[in-house]
Amino acid sequence: MLTVHHLGNSQSERIVWLCEELGLPYELVRYDRDATGVAPAAYKALHPLGTAPIVTDGKLALAETGAIVDYILAKNGAGGLALTPDDSEFANYLFWLHYANGSMVPAIMVVLMFSYSGLTEPNDVAKSMMSRLDKAYELSEKRLSTVPYFGGSRFTMADIMMGYPLTRSRTFLPRDLSPYPGIRAFLKRIGDRQAFKRAMAKGDPDMPPLLA
Amino acid sequence: MLTVHHLGNSQSERIVWLCEELGLPYELVRYDRDATGVAPAAYKALHPLGTAPIVTDGKLALAETGAIVDYILAKNGAGGLALTPDDSEFANYLFWLHYANGSMVPAIMVVLMFSYSGLTEPNDVAKSMMSRLDKAYELSEKRLSTVPYFGGSRFTMADIMMGYPLTRSRTFLPRDLSPYPGIRAFLKRIGDRQAFKRAMAKGDPDMPPLLA
Repeated sequence: MLTVHHLGNSQSERIVWLCEELGLPYELVRYDRDATGVAPAAYKALHPLGTAPIVTDGKLALAETGAIVDYILAKNGAGGLALTPDDSEFANYLFWLHYANGSMVPAIMVVLMFSYSGLTEPNDVAKSMMSRLDKAYELSEKRLSTVPYFGGSRFTMADIMMGYPLTRSRTFLPRDLSPYPGIRAFLKRIGDRQAFKRAMAKGDPDMPPLLA
Repeated sequence: MLTVHHLGNSQSERIVWLCEELGLPYELVRYDRDATGVAPAAYKALHPLGTAPIVTDGKLALAETGAIVDYILAKNGAGGLALTPDDSEFANYLFWLHYANGSMVPAIMVVLMFSYSGLTEPNDVAKSMMSRLDKAYELSEKRLSTVPYFGGSRFTMADIMMGYPLTRSRTFLPRDLSPYPGIRAFLKRIGDRQAFKRAMAKGDPDMPPLLA
């Protein structure tokens, strides 16, 4: 049986959510960040990479979000969460599926780094990266103003991937979502999902609700 | 027919390489970075994201490396470049396939940002990210000291993905590879591939050779 090692307030939230969406049997082990905000030693010891998410399955320990997602879908079936090549939204689905960790999460990371860097005024490099994060919100808003989900008409794995950076606006990197009605409507849809509610109740019971 | 829009010295190098490995018919359009090192306006106009790689296929314009890779493999067949779930190296293959852009490239980006930031002394945040890049080389060396390719005994898509950050040591972020004999042997294997040579000759003919 799969064990999901969940570090509180981290990307492993998506793996808990995925397991709940698929209705998989799984064991959840929670870890809290230490006083400095990083993963505790017990978490880092699970895999040489040491960053969330990490899952174990028998003797296998696997890290890296995209790898874990592909692994779970391949071993258990995608349960309707993946679009197939014949779907007219296939390319859009793939774009958002990969854009989340390929571009948006790195942009958040860089902006966070600069906010901790001691630079009082963002320099040109910082401004360029901040504009990438602005663009992430703009592109998301544009997409979600025409379709309810990133993959088009129905909920897919792309929504679980994009849900994480978009919901981080309430924790790591506060952002005013009032200019983004499409994103807010999407977050409402996500927050209403029973699987999302179960995942948050199990994984991050102290997290503030998704939307006020 | 697929058109690969290749920005010189960029991640779109991997898409040219992938097409050459698969023996696909494709059109290559080259773009040079402008005097400030960024993509020219004509490149940015190809897709709302505006970052390399970008491909077009009829009316479709698609960006984001992972999405383009999945799209090409799904539409054309993986040609042996993807491992299947029954393969004993499946989880390792998935890890490296996603680790490249999920962790290693972002670490390179953050280190580059700091090197341009005007901070003379790396602070704790910068040091933490620099240690992530050190770890990327350590993990790669450990893997490649036991098997010839990231996916194990044979060349796969994971090698194309990891090849990019590892070969950037010769351009964006110089790094002494002498402590890493496994990585150097891997780069030699890559550099000897006819498909890699063709991709570099077409896409980046002025790039220095892969290894001295």
